[in-house]
Amino acid sequence: VRLGEAMGAIRPADAGAMAAARERHARLTKPAGSLGALEELSVRLAGLAGGCPPPVPTRPVVAIFVGDHGVHAAGVTPWPQEVTGQMVANFLAGTAVINAFARQVGAEVVVVDVGVASRIDDPTGQLWRRRVRSGTRDLSTGPAMTREEALEAIGVGLAVALELAGRGHDVLLTGDMGIANTTPAAALVAALTGADPADVTGRGTGIDDATLARKAAIVAAALVRHRPDPTDPVGVLAAMGGLEHAALAGLILGGAALRVPVILDGVAGCAAALVAAALAPAAADAMVAGHRSAEPGASVALAHLGLTPLVDLGLRLGEGTGAALALPIVAAAARVLHDVATFDSAGVARVDARPDNERGEASQRAVQT
Amino acid sequence: VRLGEAMGAIRPADAGAMAAARERHARLTKPAGSLGALEELSVRLAGLAGGCPPPVPTRPVVAIFVGDHGVHAAGVTPWPQEVTGQMVANFLAGTAVINAFARQVGAEVVVVDVGVASRIDDPTGQLWRRRVRSGTRDLSTGPAMTREEALEAIGVGLAVALELAGRGHDVLLTGDMGIANTTPAAALVAALTGADPADVTGRGTGIDDATLARKAAIVAAALVRHRPDPTDPVGVLAAMGGLEHAALAGLILGGAALRVPVILDGVAGCAAALVAAALAPAAADAMVAGHRSAEPGASVALAHLGLTPLVDLGLRLGEGTGAALALPIVAAAARVLHDVATFDSAGVARVDARPDNERGEASQRAVQT
Repeated sequence: VRLGEAMGAIRPADAGAMAAARERHARLTKPAGSLGALEELSVRLAGLAGGCPPPVPTRPVVAIFVGDHGVHAAGVTPWPQEVTGQMVANFLAGTAVINAFARQVGAEVVVVDVGVASRIDDPTGQLWRRRVRSGTRDLSTGPAMTREEALEAIGVGLAVALELAGRGHDVLLTGDMGIANTTPAAALVAALTGADPADVTGRGTGIDDATLARKAAIVAAALVRHRPDPTDPVGVLAAMGGLEHAALAGLILGGAALRVPVILDGVAGCAAALVAAALAPAAADAMVAGHRSAEPGASVALAHLGLTPLVDLGLRLGEGTGAALALPIVAAAARVLHDVATFDSAGVARVDARPDNERGEASQRAVQT
Repeated sequence: VRLGEAMGAIRPADAGAMAAARERHARLTKPAGSLGALEELSVRLAGLAGGCPPPVPTRPVVAIFVGDHGVHAAGVTPWPQEVTGQMVANFLAGTAVINAFARQVGAEVVVVDVGVASRIDDPTGQLWRRRVRSGTRDLSTGPAMTREEALEAIGVGLAVALELAGRGHDVLLTGDMGIANTTPAAALVAALTGADPADVTGRGTGIDDATLARKAAIVAAALVRHRPDPTDPVGVLAAMGGLEHAALAGLILGGAALRVPVILDGVAGCAAALVAAALAPAAADAMVAGHRSAEPGASVALAHLGLTPLVDLGLRLGEGTGAALALPIVAAAARVLHDVATFDSAGVARVDARPDNERGEASQRAVQT
């Protein structure tokens, strides 16, 4: 029911706020269009906020959802499954890469166990224990989850979004950890975009050619076995997804319902974004593509969603690391609409110049101020 | 003399520190190579610092050098020359885009008048008044500066670097403002890389096709007129450069001499970087390419210097805006080598996996910890 409420609360971006942001950009003391992709980003933030200027995010949080995967048994990665739980300890100790990045950009980190297979000690009580089950079943031999489990995991992500927003967090960054989780991510991307499994299956944390071939074959066979219906995203998740992908979809839906921007990290976040958009198309207006993961499925998903990533540095770590690097860019895009003077207010002479290749007409008029 | 001292102090990156950084990366709790371009960036920072881990920059500063250009009279831009001085007032008021970006990423901004044509009021005394002359001469009719003026402007930038470092700034960001200054920048890039003028001349703040054709013809004619010798970068600067380009070259040399990283912004900073590298090739080891400006000369210069930009969002504003967006990425790259646990210390099982396409050999060994 709560999921239904959230989906019902999701509205498209506010066209008036977007128009106001575009109009304001034209009056700021800079050549028209000179901030490139940042201008459209700030327009989207205004549309999501429903006003211009949109708020500058000051309380960012990375929500790392962690789960294990039955398909690990099929040999899709050389990493032992125990590493999932070991990395949770690393996150809680503040010594993983995402902790370093989050510290750098002023973001908090929360770690949510939505489906780890092993027992996790947490003497300091930092872990958000929301385990739906101890790892999924093997998607190569049957459904990864029941439909109820998938819905429960979506509900976990949704509840986390509401709780984080309630604590004052004003931008959510997707994070994930789960040994083998790029296999279900690839399956989700293939199922929800119609892409060829070979085009969305990547090397994840680093696998050799033989393992990559096996992984792509498993994804292809899963599509044949489960016959996923892209108009039933919960069914797709249950058949082939991971608990962290389901929870991330819920987080994104929660952000969209609350009109809080969600910065997508790598292929897990992008696959979850496809699920969220399939459930509520307007949720895409709350999404910001943080970076272009080296994992090919991420690019396929972003293209399907019509999103262009902000950072493209070949990262393939997950955890929220790419989203964290994009965060200052997102904040800067919002801040421009607050802090920058207009030509009129600053007494700067204005020229209505724009490259011909950007507007298709040759016109340069000096406007007196 | 001071320039000679600075050039003499510039040493190549420390190979031992770079090897130590690479070795440390291999032991950190992440798959090998999973941070993509950030790993090599952190290695370069270690090489510059002469130790691993390199310091995490905490006191960033954007140095905006401002100048006017005699070539403005040749009709290379629709913007009136007065806008240069008006934008100085905007910087000092804290209401330009660079002020917003710098505020977002925690950087200070200093504004240095190295060659504005007009009188500038500065009631609060913030402006660094280092004017060498009130704008350059028109490079399309004669040399833009004397050799002495070019050297003096280089000395201004060098002195600013030393003063900023003396105040505790540990990373320098290049900034620039000067109506018409992409014309001398294009000329510098063409002269110092051998590129065709048409391939390095861009639309700057936004010019129409006719103005672009005139601008490229002016750059091409200047190369014929001045016959710049790329082995004499001061002579190239004097013939066709701007005072802010000269000062930026000095800033970069100063950073390199002090082993402080310099984040390059747009085409002005990139053109200045070519000058600096022509004077002292090892200065390139201090440079970080902040972003890929939409101005084509910037990309040509970066390729010549062997640098890959961190951010690529189609910005074409200057002021240091692209460098500011890259700053958190640079800091994050250094911080990884400080904050992240090793497999051994964190008790995480290590797998020596790396994609075949990254190392050309298939090998995956589980290493017990």
